This record gives sequence, structure tokens and C-alpha cells, in this order.
Amino acid sequence: MGEVIIAGIGQVPVGEQWDYSLRTLAARAIQAARKDAGGLKPQALYIGNALASVVLHQSNLGSLLADNSGLEGIESYTIEAAGASGAGAFRMGYLAVASGYVDVAAVVGVEKCTDIVDEELEAAVAETTDYDYEAMQGMTPTAQAALLMQRYMHEYAMPKNVLAELAILAHANAMHNPNAMFHRLVDRAAYEKAAMISSPLNRLDMAAYCDGAAAVIMTRPDLVPPAIKHPLVRVTASSVVSDTLALHDREDPLAFKAAGLSVERACRYAGIMPSDVNLFEVYSAFSIYVILALEAAGFAAQGEGYKLVQEGALALNGRLPVCTMGGEKGRGNPLGATGIYQVVEASLQLRGEAGVNQVKNARRAMVQTLGGAASTAVTQLLERYH
Amino acid sequence: MGEVIIAGIGQVPVGEQWDYSLRTLAARAIQAARKDAGGLKPQALYIGNALASVVLHQSNLGSLLADNSGLEGIESYTIEAAGASGAGAFRMGYLAVASGYVDVAAVVGVEKCTDIVDEELEAAVAETTDYDYEAMQGMTPTAQAALLMQRYMHEYAMPKNVLAELAILAHANAMHNPNAMFHRLVDRAAYEKAAMISSPLNRLDMAAYCDGAAAVIMTRPDLVPPAIKHPLVRVTASSVVSDTLALHDREDPLAFKAAGLSVERACRYAGIMPSDVNLFEVYSAFSIYVILALEAAGFAAQGEGYKLVQEGALALNGRLPVCTMGGEKGRGNPLGATGIYQVVEASLQLRGEAGVNQVKNARRAMVQTLGGAASTAVTQLLERYH
Repeated sequence: MGEVIIAGIGQVPVGEQWDYSLRTLAARAIQAARKDAGGLKPQALYIGNALASVVLHQSNLGSLLADNSGLEGIESYTIEAAGASGAGAFRMGYLAVASGYVDVAAVVGVEKCTDIVDEELEAAVAETTDYDYEAMQGMTPTAQAALLMQRYMHEYAMPKNVLAELAILAHANAMHNPNAMFHRLVDRAAYEKAAMISSPLNRLDMAAYCDGAAAVIMTRPDLVPPAIKHPLVRVTASSVVSDTLALHDREDPLAFKAAGLSVERACRYAGIMPSDVNLFEVYSAFSIYVILALEAAGFAAQGEGYKLVQEGALALNGRLPVCTMGGEKGRGNPLGATGIYQVVEASLQLRGEAGVNQVKNARRAMVQTLGGAASTAVTQLLERYH
Repeated sequence: MGEVIIAGIGQVPVGEQWDYSLRTLAARAIQAARKDAGGLKPQALYIGNALASVVLHQSNLGSLLADNSGLEGIESYTIEAAGASGAGAFRMGYLAVASGYVDVAAVVGVEKCTDIVDEELEAAVAETTDYDYEAMQGMTPTAQAALLMQRYMHEYAMPKNVLAELAILAHANAMHNPNAMFHRLVDRAAYEKAAMISSPLNRLDMAAYCDGAAAVIMTRPDLVPPAIKHPLVRVTASSVVSDTLALHDREDPLAFKAAGLSVERACRYAGIMPSDVNLFEVYSAFSIYVILALEAAGFAAQGEGYKLVQEGALALNGRLPVCTMGGEKGRGNPLGATGIYQVVEASLQLRGEAGVNQVKNARRAMVQTLGGAASTAVTQLLERYH
């Protein structure tokens, strides 16, 4: 397998993008990434998207987005894995370039969530659960997270204010991310007052579904245009693992087995230990997922992940910074686009371009994206390229 | 790039499969393919599906189908490109194995079309057109095909009974395919009487949307179990190309540019000429597409593809047999599964297992699958492995 470099990154602001269509959002992100990559022209465009066929009545995005981005005639199609759609598309781009089959691949994650009313959106995202056995009975991703949160607090001694700290951290990090949806601090009092959504999970225990698009350009080291002045990022591993779709089919729902396995396989492939990374862009669609993912990755024993929050380990100056640009909670969660936003943000850190959010000496990053309640887990390992 | 072998194939009968859920159809096809592949265990499952999120309210098929096929814990997600979804998933499996990253990949195409009423299904498949500019105005894939058919007959001297011959050929070939949806001959009289759907396109100018699942197991030559007694098939190229999504954006809508480019690129990669293939599993969702694809591939000049029908070149004993097991027209068109059915059928031919439909001395096959009105075109080249 050849080396794979992220030569360019691009993103549009996350939020309620009612002035832009799906195709325009994607084109803007792709154009920004191509510009950042010194104008490299991709031969392939892999698209991460989860909801367009339900929300926008639009499938077959491959030709739509390639054409609208000035890339007609290239290889293009959509990868879908719920919240991990963008991450799956990244894996596809990685394979295509690493194999030598594609010289330059563009990967775009794009989502429009806010063109329909909340109830319709909740039904759309419920399709990421096992429809026949979960959604059909009224289960939604939020309800799944609430069940996991309740179970976790039942099994272990986590005080609820630990999750408040996670929301506070995410929103603080989003303050200086110009592409984040939210630019306001939250505090303990706000958390206490937050509306209950699905007990015990409140408004600030979950991220907002929103619109956005982010893109990367990947290529081999020898094809990186000399005109590029910014540091490069190397992809050292990309691992996708699936678990059962339905929560009730799992021996231990709190184990997030696929998340653990994907970290294990990615680290083995890259020849590193999880503790070798300088930051962890963890998936924070629900705060409880952060705790469970930290434990699954081995950063803490099961039932003790929350202690990392209490110790301050997850802050920008801690030993394992997470959600460094706000994560899903602070930046917003444009479902199928999220995996690429995470990679773009980790790349900014590795390039030393994260501004006041810069993690010191960031050389290696772990990026993890989950689809469903960790029914699909994707772990990308990135490092600064010399 | 390493060599890629199709070690096993599996399929379930195409039709109205109301007794089986999506997950069961997929599991049956995957299990059949694994059995055919000497029990090889895949590390990855790539899924081709187009409609589940709209028809069944089920997205996130990766974990659902991996788990239900006894493959929990492997890499898995969905590739979507309308009618070419299965073909796109095949491309993914090919890349994964060729790159050396995955030892054994399973690819399944699966679709359930018939769990909803016709009008809803027509709306679902209309999502494969440009929704904002086509479907929103009432355009459907059938209407697109009718426009192309009308334009073709306006531009060129094709008598309409040529298309009757294509339907007759497809249904005759399906007669001896136990997995085909239709087992009845049609004749010129039936064609004349066929209900008009979208003038000038009638019931027999189009394939039926239906349910089905087909799977293949791909691996490297050195990993093929010695217990396998059937001949092996080698994948020599896989090429995906996109055109504009909307028909009105094309300089020449009759050119099927993406289809032509994908043949050109696949043949260049494999080092063969299109005329080197012994059969062509062409995409026959609409009969006019067969004519346009034949021309795009260079088997006939533009405006002359229909003459291949008149000459009898496309019959099983002709110089370029097409739809050898019935094609979409005779076998049925389980949209996202179709690309894998085509590969399975071509493999049967190359293995010499096509029964009375066997094409003599079949050593090389071209398989082409289209998404939308050739907005995505995928060409696979297969050959018998020595």
C-alpha cells in the first residue's frame, strides 16, 4: 500500500444553510479543498451522505455533485453508513489512492438536515436504527443514547455534572471555530436548566442536526504540487468495523465493541498505540458516546471514562484533547458530513493552523466517527507529514 | 495492483419476494456465495442498495446485513449510485482486494421494491433523476427513457419493431434462468398489444422493478481454497464514470458519454479491445438503453446500434450475445442489486455453467450497469481464470 497524503481541506460553515442547496454546499467545500491542494484535479469523488434521499428526495448524488463541482466525467458515488457516512467515504478515498488505482481522490461529506420540520427529521434519523425492531417501536437515536446514559449511570458512579463539563468544553472550543454552528458559552447553570429531551438526556447532552459540507483532497506524496506551502498530513490507517444494528442484540450495550475494534485495527496497521496520539476527534453526537468511545478505545477502563473529564484530560491543554474545534456538540452535526469535518479539523491541528484552539505539538491525531449507536465505527489515524 | 478473483457467486430468485425481508434476502445470497467460495470468510462486506431508506425506512445497512449474515465485526457499508449501486459496490470490493488491504471481500446487491404501491415506487425511483429540475417537474426514469426513445427514432431510421426483438430475446433468454422473474415467451403480437406507458415507450420496452439479492466473494488467487472445483473468474478492470445527472444538461443526450468512457477506461486498463469480449451483459432497464449503450461502447456507430439487433448479433449464438440470462427485462430489475446479478450471470457464462443459455467459448465478458439515464456508468471486465 502506498502512502496517502491529505493535500487539501475545505469546509463551509455549519448551521441552517437555507440559502444554499446540497449541490452548492458540496461544490463550495470541494472547490475550497482543491484550492488548498494547489488546484489538483481529482479522478474520483467519493461522497458521504446519509439523508438526501429522505430529506431532499434526491439519490444518485455521484453525478449530481461531480457535475456541479466541475468534475463531470470522473468516478463518483455515495457511501452511506448513517453518521459515519463521511468517514466511510474517506476510507474509500484512502483505499483508492493507496491502491494506486486513483492518483487524486476528492472526498466530500455533505448533508442538509434543516429543510424539513423537526418531526420529519427525527423520523429520518430513526432510519439509522433497526427499523423493524427499533424505529418501528418508537426508538430514535436520541432515545438510544438516553437508554445508554441511564444504564451507564446505573452501572457506574458517574455524577451527571460530568456530562455538563463535556458540553461546556465543546461549546468553549467552538467559540473560536469560524465554521461552527454555535458561538456561545454554556455553563453549569445553563446545563441545569436545559430542556429534558429523553430522560435523563437533556438538550445539552446532544448535538444539533444541521447542514454542512466538508472536503479533502487525497493523493500520493509524489503528486503533491510544489506550490503548496502548508504542511501536509499523512493518513496512516483507516478502519471500518460494524456491530449489530439493534442495541438489544448486543451482549453489553455499554461496550461499543465496534469502536474498540476499529481503534485496535487502525493502531495495529499504523504500528502505534492509542496513547501515541496527541488529540482524539471523538464523535460527540451525544455526550454519553464520548465516554463510551474513550473506554472502547482503551483510554480508560470500562466505567471509568468519565474520570478523564473530571481530571481535565480532555481540554485543549490536557493529555488527550477531544472535540478540539467544538466537536459535533459545538460545531454541529451535519450527519453524513461529520466524518469529513472531523478530518478537516484534525488536519488543521496537525498543520498548526488551529488558531487559539491549537493543541501544542500535535503530530498524531485519531479521528473516530460513529454510525448509529456505534453500529458502524470508523477510525482514521493521521499524522503530520515530514 | 494485485489480481482479483471471483471465488464464489450466489443469488436468490428475482421477483416479488414478499415472504423475505431485505436482511433475509441479503443473507441468503451471501451464504450461497460463501458456500460457492469454499466457505471463505470475508473481512469486508460492501453493499449495493438504492431504495431501502425510502421504501423500507431503513438506512445504515452495513451493520444490519453484516450481523444478519453472521459477519458481525467486519468492515461494512452501503454504496449508492441508483441502478448502478451494486456495480459501485463491486468496484469497491475490487479496489479493496486489489490494494491488498482486504484479503476476502463480499459484495452484495440487495433491493426490495415491491413492499410499497406502484405510485410510491415511481416516486422513489424518480429520486435518481435531478430532483430539483426533473423529478419536481414530473420527470421519472421511465419518462426519461421515453424521451430518449422518441429522440432516437426522430434522429435515426430505427423501426420500432427492433425494440420488440430485444424484448423477445430477453424473455427467451430468461426462460431457462431459474432465478429470473419471468418465465414466459413474448412475441411480436404481445409487443403490439403491450400497454403504452409513456409514449412511445410501452410495457415491453422496460423492465419490472422487483426484489432480489445477489452476492460475490472476491479474493486474491493465493487465497482461493483448493476445495473449490468450479472454474474461477478474474476481474481485469472496473471503471465508474459519471455524466451530468439531468438529461437537459447534456450536449447530446443520445451519446451516453459516461457509458462510452467507462468502457474505454476499463478496456485500456485491461489491455483489451471491446471486440475482444465474448458477451456483453448490457443494462436493459429500458430497451432503448441497450441500443445507446451498444453505440457508446463502440460496437456500432451512433444511430446504427439497432442494426445489431436486426443482424441477430445479440442472440446467444450471435457475435455479441447480450442479456444472456434474460437481462433486466427478462430477469427483472432489482435496482441496487442488478449490478451484482449481472456479474453473477457473466460468471456463470465464463465458468461454463449457464446451461442451455451457455455462450460457446465464453472467455471474456463485459458487464455494464447504468445509474439514472447513464448519469453513472460502471463497466466491469471479467475473464475465465486459468
